[in-house]
Amino acid sequence: MLTKIINGILNNDEKIKKESRERVDNLIKPKGSLGKVEDLFVKLCGIYGEIVNEIPKKAIIIAAGDHKVVEEGVATSDKSITLFQVNNFTKGLTGVCSLVKTSRADIFVVDVGVDNEIDNPKVISRKIKYGSDNIAKGPAMTYEEAVKSIEVGIEMVFERYNEGYRMLGVGEMGIGNTTPSSAIISVLSGIPPEETTSVGANLPLDKLANKVDTIKKAIEVNSPDSRDPLDVLSKVGGLEIGTMAGVILGCAYKKIPVVLDGFISVAAAMIAKGLCEKSVAYMIPSHNSKEKGAILGMRNLGLEPYFDFDMRLGEGTGAAIMFNFLDSAIYMNSTMITFEEAGFRVL
Amino acid sequence: MLTKIINGILNNDEKIKKESRERVDNLIKPKGSLGKVEDLFVKLCGIYGEIVNEIPKKAIIIAAGDHKVVEEGVATSDKSITLFQVNNFTKGLTGVCSLVKTSRADIFVVDVGVDNEIDNPKVISRKIKYGSDNIAKGPAMTYEEAVKSIEVGIEMVFERYNEGYRMLGVGEMGIGNTTPSSAIISVLSGIPPEETTSVGANLPLDKLANKVDTIKKAIEVNSPDSRDPLDVLSKVGGLEIGTMAGVILGCAYKKIPVVLDGFISVAAAMIAKGLCEKSVAYMIPSHNSKEKGAILGMRNLGLEPYFDFDMRLGEGTGAAIMFNFLDSAIYMNSTMITFEEAGFRVL
Repeated sequence: MLTKIINGILNNDEKIKKESRERVDNLIKPKGSLGKVEDLFVKLCGIYGEIVNEIPKKAIIIAAGDHKVVEEGVATSDKSITLFQVNNFTKGLTGVCSLVKTSRADIFVVDVGVDNEIDNPKVISRKIKYGSDNIAKGPAMTYEEAVKSIEVGIEMVFERYNEGYRMLGVGEMGIGNTTPSSAIISVLSGIPPEETTSVGANLPLDKLANKVDTIKKAIEVNSPDSRDPLDVLSKVGGLEIGTMAGVILGCAYKKIPVVLDGFISVAAAMIAKGLCEKSVAYMIPSHNSKEKGAILGMRNLGLEPYFDFDMRLGEGTGAAIMFNFLDSAIYMNSTMITFEEAGFRVL
Repeated sequence: MLTKIINGILNNDEKIKKESRERVDNLIKPKGSLGKVEDLFVKLCGIYGEIVNEIPKKAIIIAAGDHKVVEEGVATSDKSITLFQVNNFTKGLTGVCSLVKTSRADIFVVDVGVDNEIDNPKVISRKIKYGSDNIAKGPAMTYEEAVKSIEVGIEMVFERYNEGYRMLGVGEMGIGNTTPSSAIISVLSGIPPEETTSVGANLPLDKLANKVDTIKKAIEVNSPDSRDPLDVLSKVGGLEIGTMAGVILGCAYKKIPVVLDGFISVAAAMIAKGLCEKSVAYMIPSHNSKEKGAILGMRNLGLEPYFDFDMRLGEGTGAAIMFNFLDSAIYMNSTMITFEEAGFRVL
């Protein structure tokens, strides 16, 4: 299934991009004066393959999983927070739940690796196993589990697509997941872990060296092959990161935009890019995470974040805010008219 | 009236700011992880003097006026565009009309100086005169007209306040108004016109030197007193810039936030600050205009823009986008719960 999806991803529609740029240039404003709002509109048109006029139905897919590498002392939050927040998403109580209110996006939570039984019918259950294994001691998962984690993400997109969703954002919940993300970004970019690693959810600074050492050990113990993204994901990654990569690939296959979030989503996007370079054209970055490796990963993807609010919460919070900009870009086209349409002549 | 307003502007509520910060720190997320969204919430609480839980009714006040300095060749757009766009605002067709859709803000257009008769009942008519005079040859307006232009802005706020609006943005329309804005920012900051001036609405680069010379001439001919903001406004300013300054002062007096826009709004904000230093605490910057003097003026105000989308349209377009962030900040508090409220204990 994964191979079929990867081979089915096409380039953006360059002809429509040109057409949409011409229209934007003629709207009743100085040419270029709406800057990135204009660029976003052109990008959306290229992705959809048509001049967009309607606000798309939107959702954030939150993939959840635990990480046994927390045994190494790489996170301050208790592992039980993963389960706690998975349930809170379904009650509408977390950060991302608040930030989707302005753009009216829906939230879907899928469990691929939470290390607890989840007794909540609102959580989509696709558990692959009870937590990614401790990467400091061996691989996070098998190669087959890595493929499966991505396929769950693709499946999530297909289901949402059938429900009428035409714009998705990626989010995650998983205490400890900045550690595998940092490892993935390091291996795939060739940048040493010291530079891709920071404090995640408020790890005390005096424990940062141990986190970096743990990541180095994970890379040493597992020797991931940087030319094989599935090998990297299975050895130093995490189940929910695989699912996020799957959401990205699924969106690219279905020709709908996928809005990235922060640090973890960058790691997932690099896996997706490794599997299919063309998928990058469907990614829309959102914010620059305060986690320092995020911007390095973004550069590796050839993307530039649109805003920087000093955020580092994850969950899809950056994507939630970005949805508003994308709506604005569509409203620009559907609301404004051209000088010609206005019958403007110099008085 | 103006003196009464200026003397009635109070400081933000520091006690409520502290209380709101404590609540934000205890919401179910790592402390500080929503960055500037958290800061914006605290700022809003300080302005309103209470913990905000409801999304305020919002509007953008667009002040319109012409500038006879366009005779000097400082703008490419024909002067008739001012009237054209004033009418288009009321038809919902311009850039700001499209960008308020996501946050559902209303738009009010007030004519203080358009150089045409306006036959449109949807435009609020407070015309002071038919265009600000050519500042390269003499003052833009009399001292009394400057006071009047500000009072119109204050009046606009009071009317909106009575209609239930609790958050306003400033916008403008006036072909040629980057020239007086540049002059104001230069005089009030002491930064030479070369550094505060750029191309506005696509002035060809080879005409930029003439624009800078015109601004220098305006300052030389009029000798505005940089210690008297009303003198500066009347000599090298513009009618709609005065009205924007009035909107800012009116909001500060009524203890509601006023969202700045781009370059012209920065000039207006500097006039407001000059008249009442305390008004700055009620200003919420939005984007960094591509017009290079904007950031210099922002620094002079001690403010930092929240985003940079390479925009330079004016009309209140930056404020329109910013409204979404402010709504998000309020939703953060009204939607999320604290760890204590969630009854969280480590499992």
